[in-house]
Amino acid sequence: MLTKKHLLAGIAIAAGIGVAATASAQVKPETLVKQRQSAMVLVAKYFGPLGGMAQGRVPFNAEVVARNAGYLEVLARMPWDGFTDATKDVKSATLPAAFADPKFKQGQEQMQTAIANLAAVAKSGDEAKIKAAIGEVGKTCSGCHDNFREKQ
Amino acid sequence: MLTKKHLLAGIAIAAGIGVAATASAQVKPETLVKQRQSAMVLVAKYFGPLGGMAQGRVPFNAEVVARNAGYLEVLARMPWDGFTDATKDVKSATLPAAFADPKFKQGQEQMQTAIANLAAVAKSGDEAKIKAAIGEVGKTCSGCHDNFREKQ
Repeated sequence: MLTKKHLLAGIAIAAGIGVAATASAQVKPETLVKQRQSAMVLVAKYFGPLGGMAQGRVPFNAEVVARNAGYLEVLARMPWDGFTDATKDVKSATLPAAFADPKFKQGQEQMQTAIANLAAVAKSGDEAKIKAAIGEVGKTCSGCHDNFREKQ
Repeated sequence: MLTKKHLLAGIAIAAGIGVAATASAQVKPETLVKQRQSAMVLVAKYFGPLGGMAQGRVPFNAEVVARNAGYLEVLARMPWDGFTDATKDVKSATLPAAFADPKFKQGQEQMQTAIANLAAVAKSGDEAKIKAAIGEVGKTCSGCHDNFREKQ
């Protein structure tokens, strides 16, 4: 049986920050940054091997591409609500332009479109087309990072 | 046009660690830990508000539950391949039992089952059933954290 104690414990632990996350307006700026960075870490986890396949460094595997593209479609929706004005003063690699330039939003949409295209193309099993579609996703990564992220 | 330079730049930046992620066997243990923690941060982001709804602290919104449950179905697949033996010595809140006790794997499956159930129930719009299903997910959080994670 569900007890409130159980539920509270589960949520507090899941939040991992000692405070349950509620509506996004109440989430601390530092947490928003951590969340958006976490989404990017996972984008890198699942896009990295695909980039390797496109370059021939990793054996091509259409099933992995299809799975990862599906994951990336979901992950590509997650970072953006973490870029609120409240986070402007939190230390991160994000440049101030990300909070002012409408190209940042356009870049998000280009990424999502490229990933949706990759997910569709991945089902075809056509290696050349899939590799080209991976490359198009890669270009949207650098498209935003060049303008809105500190050089690493 | 896609150039190799573009692609490499995009991948290196996306990986965020100066080295493109390739096959998981080649990923550094520290990166695996960062990736699994990132998945948990996002689980907390999208489960937190649902827990708040089940407790009555956050206004109930069936659409948010359905959206977040869909995200959680995908996120719940992501942490586990980061718990490799190679990560045993990396500093984290994971207890040694996670690498030895088969209940850890069972807990993963219970979480995934509870989230799949929540995603299905969310479509019904039945508030009481949805809140109960949220509670069942919360119990699977603490089910594993109690045994396999340091007390925070």
